[in-house]
Amino acid sequence: MDVYEAIARRRDVRAEFTGERIDEPALLRMLGAAHQAPSVGHSAPWDFVVVQDADILNRMAAHVAQRRQEFADSLPPARRETFDPIRIEGIRESGTGVVVSYDHSRGGNHILGRHTIAETGVLSVALAIENLWLAGVAEGVGVGWVSFYDEDFLTSLVGLPDGVRPVAWLCVGPVSQLQEVPDLERFGWRGRRPLQDAIHRDTWDGPRA
Amino acid sequence: MDVYEAIARRRDVRAEFTGERIDEPALLRMLGAAHQAPSVGHSAPWDFVVVQDADILNRMAAHVAQRRQEFADSLPPARRETFDPIRIEGIRESGTGVVVSYDHSRGGNHILGRHTIAETGVLSVALAIENLWLAGVAEGVGVGWVSFYDEDFLTSLVGLPDGVRPVAWLCVGPVSQLQEVPDLERFGWRGRRPLQDAIHRDTWDGPRA
Repeated sequence: MDVYEAIARRRDVRAEFTGERIDEPALLRMLGAAHQAPSVGHSAPWDFVVVQDADILNRMAAHVAQRRQEFADSLPPARRETFDPIRIEGIRESGTGVVVSYDHSRGGNHILGRHTIAETGVLSVALAIENLWLAGVAEGVGVGWVSFYDEDFLTSLVGLPDGVRPVAWLCVGPVSQLQEVPDLERFGWRGRRPLQDAIHRDTWDGPRA
Repeated sequence: MDVYEAIARRRDVRAEFTGERIDEPALLRMLGAAHQAPSVGHSAPWDFVVVQDADILNRMAAHVAQRRQEFADSLPPARRETFDPIRIEGIRESGTGVVVSYDHSRGGNHILGRHTIAETGVLSVALAIENLWLAGVAEGVGVGWVSFYDEDFLTSLVGLPDGVRPVAWLCVGPVSQLQEVPDLERFGWRGRRPLQDAIHRDTWDGPRA
């Protein structure tokens, strides 16, 4: 699939998982794509914990449901009504969770390029996630990034060692379709910002695109 | 170009810029690809300051040269010898810098999905950068992420307003070729980690791939 088409069709999937489990070869191609991402100082600071055990999936889903409730309770009434029909995860339905983690110690003390900006390490992990996501579009596999969780809970759930922390839980599985319009637009949560508003010339206050 | 091919051929470019400036339509397609990235709560918290002014490019290059020297001075002798021949930027040669910034206030107080994990905002910006990078491969345009700078310097250089901070300086320009092997591998800085070392099953200590 053309790279621009994959970028345009990629969606954050919640409701469209078929319930089938992803084929192992497709999963390995997606993880291979993630592993080819750029990383600061060539440190490849990511790991992928592939969760298919039903008990672990259930425990994660229960935890996220609780966090979802807390977010709903924090909203003013009008926002809450908009939020209520929005699904935030497909942990059980996808059949596979991929916990993507970050190891700040990977590569030793002298990370070329992490000298001035410490966060470049964890940003590398996000680059890997985008590669996996785009590869998924080509495979007919949906990805949904779940961020309604406590780090400590997830760290303990999948047994991450000291110094390694979770960056994302990705629901990964075959999908019936990818929506044309992102869920949060379809449900009226937030519209898309025009591209021209994001482009500045030479300086922030320079002429707009 | 096929998405897997773009992922495999993408390189962090330093030395291969031709010195020509990127065509405006190609630049806009790449920024459009970035702008289609997923973002937490559909907040699109990124902006792109496209720098082509020679004076600003020169000032950035001088600043980065100073930071490079400081990193070199911090290294033990053996590492320093390995580091010396490695180029870390092509700010002038690329002819175009894209400062990608993050606005934590974009989208108001209730960002769906940023409730539990604050860093998901800046991670969204990294997802946009990866889209731009992969689109560049299809365009014959190289991208080099420069992270040897002080945030305060760059913020002031391009006039970012309060609450908006730089995440990356990307050197963007046509390239003569993309290297097959990443620079840091070619120069002996760090080898590639095997994919199988990064894959875990169900838990960190579960069976390896």
